[in-house]
Amino acid sequence: MSVSRRGFIAGSATAASASVLAACAGEKDQAAPPGVPSNSEPDHEPLQEAIVAFDGPHQAGVETPTQADLNLIGFNLKGGVDKAGLARLMRLWTEDARELAAGRTPLGSLEPEMNRWPANLTFTVGFGERVFDIAAPGEKPAWLHDIPAMTRDELREEWGQTDIALQICADDPVMCAWAMRHMTRAGGDYAQIAWVQQGFMNAYGAIPKGQTPRNLFGQVDGTVNPYEADEYAEQVWNEDGSTSLVIRRIAMHLDEWEMLDRASREEAVGRTLADGAPLSGGDEFTEPDFGATDQYGLPVIDRNSHMARSRPDANHPEQRFKRRPYNYNLPPAPGSAELSDAGLIFIAFQKDPDVQFTPVLQRLDEADRLNEWITHIGSSVYWVPPGTSADGKGDKFWGESVLG
Amino acid sequence: MSVSRRGFIAGSATAASASVLAACAGEKDQAAPPGVPSNSEPDHEPLQEAIVAFDGPHQAGVETPTQADLNLIGFNLKGGVDKAGLARLMRLWTEDARELAAGRTPLGSLEPEMNRWPANLTFTVGFGERVFDIAAPGEKPAWLHDIPAMTRDELREEWGQTDIALQICADDPVMCAWAMRHMTRAGGDYAQIAWVQQGFMNAYGAIPKGQTPRNLFGQVDGTVNPYEADEYAEQVWNEDGSTSLVIRRIAMHLDEWEMLDRASREEAVGRTLADGAPLSGGDEFTEPDFGATDQYGLPVIDRNSHMARSRPDANHPEQRFKRRPYNYNLPPAPGSAELSDAGLIFIAFQKDPDVQFTPVLQRLDEADRLNEWITHIGSSVYWVPPGTSADGKGDKFWGESVLG
Repeated sequence: MSVSRRGFIAGSATAASASVLAACAGEKDQAAPPGVPSNSEPDHEPLQEAIVAFDGPHQAGVETPTQADLNLIGFNLKGGVDKAGLARLMRLWTEDARELAAGRTPLGSLEPEMNRWPANLTFTVGFGERVFDIAAPGEKPAWLHDIPAMTRDELREEWGQTDIALQICADDPVMCAWAMRHMTRAGGDYAQIAWVQQGFMNAYGAIPKGQTPRNLFGQVDGTVNPYEADEYAEQVWNEDGSTSLVIRRIAMHLDEWEMLDRASREEAVGRTLADGAPLSGGDEFTEPDFGATDQYGLPVIDRNSHMARSRPDANHPEQRFKRRPYNYNLPPAPGSAELSDAGLIFIAFQKDPDVQFTPVLQRLDEADRLNEWITHIGSSVYWVPPGTSADGKGDKFWGESVLG
Repeated sequence: MSVSRRGFIAGSATAASASVLAACAGEKDQAAPPGVPSNSEPDHEPLQEAIVAFDGPHQAGVETPTQADLNLIGFNLKGGVDKAGLARLMRLWTEDARELAAGRTPLGSLEPEMNRWPANLTFTVGFGERVFDIAAPGEKPAWLHDIPAMTRDELREEWGQTDIALQICADDPVMCAWAMRHMTRAGGDYAQIAWVQQGFMNAYGAIPKGQTPRNLFGQVDGTVNPYEADEYAEQVWNEDGSTSLVIRRIAMHLDEWEMLDRASREEAVGRTLADGAPLSGGDEFTEPDFGATDQYGLPVIDRNSHMARSRPDANHPEQRFKRRPYNYNLPPAPGSAELSDAGLIFIAFQKDPDVQFTPVLQRLDEADRLNEWITHIGSSVYWVPPGTSADGKGDKFWGESVLG
């Protein structure tokens, strides 16, 4: 099915006809490389045929390019669910998620019509501390604890730690909703919903392929992400295929932000709004020059800009991780003068939050200029079990290495 | 750019290459015709190039094929806004919506990057009774009043009538959110948000082109819609290009519904779940045979099935209208045992709700078998002004014929 653009143009009309699908198709289940992509190439595979592999050494939904729709569910275990119960839940969830992601109908599902076009549906499960307390206290990773309190935190219990997190993403909101209903119903004997965080990013094909999506501040968000396999191996994947998931719910005070002019917005971030290039010049992926000064000898990039504070410490190159943020934009609370209840569901994957994530958060908490317009209102941390296989190579179900 | 499939296959490789875009493209801003569409044709125009015309004899967002994302906003006028103020609001909203829908940057907007790819963005404005009370009491349509109370209604004030409704739809959730922020901010001196109803349907390209989308009961929803221009002329568009908008918020009790087997679900609806065909046979668009009986002499289609009750009365063929429903699937209320707070934002367009809409609603209220699993919790009615033009042909801004 793979056909190079050159081969396509040189080929016969019949071959060209047969490869319309190929011409419309692109890479899948792989992070897009950095660069400035073309804006008119029809380089997306038709959405009806877009399927992300469920099984593999790692869970999907981590390296997978951000889909349009997110249903992120925090579950707490029901009373009396022990290690054996946890294993049963994970076994049935794995089997059902595998079917749904492939566009097949899970055992016992009465809605085959709703499951037909998965639209890049992915599931990613994470275990909170309590799963280890119940099932394998001795195996709990040292970093699996609350993110330390930050001075500016205004955390709300309603968005706090849960026993399990299940990230469901798809490029079709109907599929995403349907998959959530199926999984919550299927797991209903074992786990109940504590919270649901619903978010969105750009629709499949809505922005040029490979372009970094923007948050509701208008900023490109995710520039410094890993892109290549060796970067993922360094930053994200443990040897057994596991990783960690940190979820921060960050309210964004858009009404105030939108009163700023563009220059003030760019100063707060340290990047241009137009293309995300550092204010010291170049393009989105150019290294910033923090030594650059303007005509008055003042630094071009504010040392407390979001970009400057969020970069790895010069002596700590390990402070990198995969950002996979989603926007939320809910109706304003009744009686509120705000135009919307908006913000970011900041989702981060890394080997060790204590080493890679929290130091960055502390630097931001201390002096990020963006702090004036954001408030962290939720926080939770999970261990993300290795990927699965249907043929007995490795874990057959989520968390088998801990629960099996 | 238009190229027939036959011409495409017969053409030269170079021509074929040039028309990849055409081959990927399809019709736009036009309801798909009934029929069983092919499932593998890449017949969608690339989403990045998908723009729905803003100006025209009618507002967009009525005939427009349902987009993925809905932000439907109910506004109430601020104190002291008179006819002149209403005209100023509509003039500025029309100008801004026209720019946003075209992928241009409205005057005073500081976010050109967020407005670049409209993704079939449409805006549809409606006036509640109070706009006429303020601006033109003598011109208020006779039907512009609350939908009469139904015996089963459990209407909540929070989803009730407002002065203005603004329906924003797009195939990119970021664009849809952004357009809502722009419009609510732009209108902030004149109108404040009373409610926001957020909904979703299938993503652009996620299901076969022209296929009727499904609601969260798994039913195809919208089969009996108008498709052709003469049907729209008969059912929807008044001679001046105006129409009416009825919004019913309908909670769907999915947890109970999902306990039914497929046969029970199909009996309640009167159609098969597989393809929406009447239980008396044929395909989705086959006329149902209410006289058909089974081996025991019992009717194949229950007389109180949703399909039977919702069809036009045999003596009243005028009981037809355009349905443009959106699903909602919100997190369960805190403490609720339900899996989600789900339902339908039922949006209907017709010349005269008293004649076309309410009689159908009354028949459903009386005996629809679906009533066991649904509750109407919101209701409002609006006059939808004619379309606009940028070149002085007809209304230059929304509602000019009433406010000008």
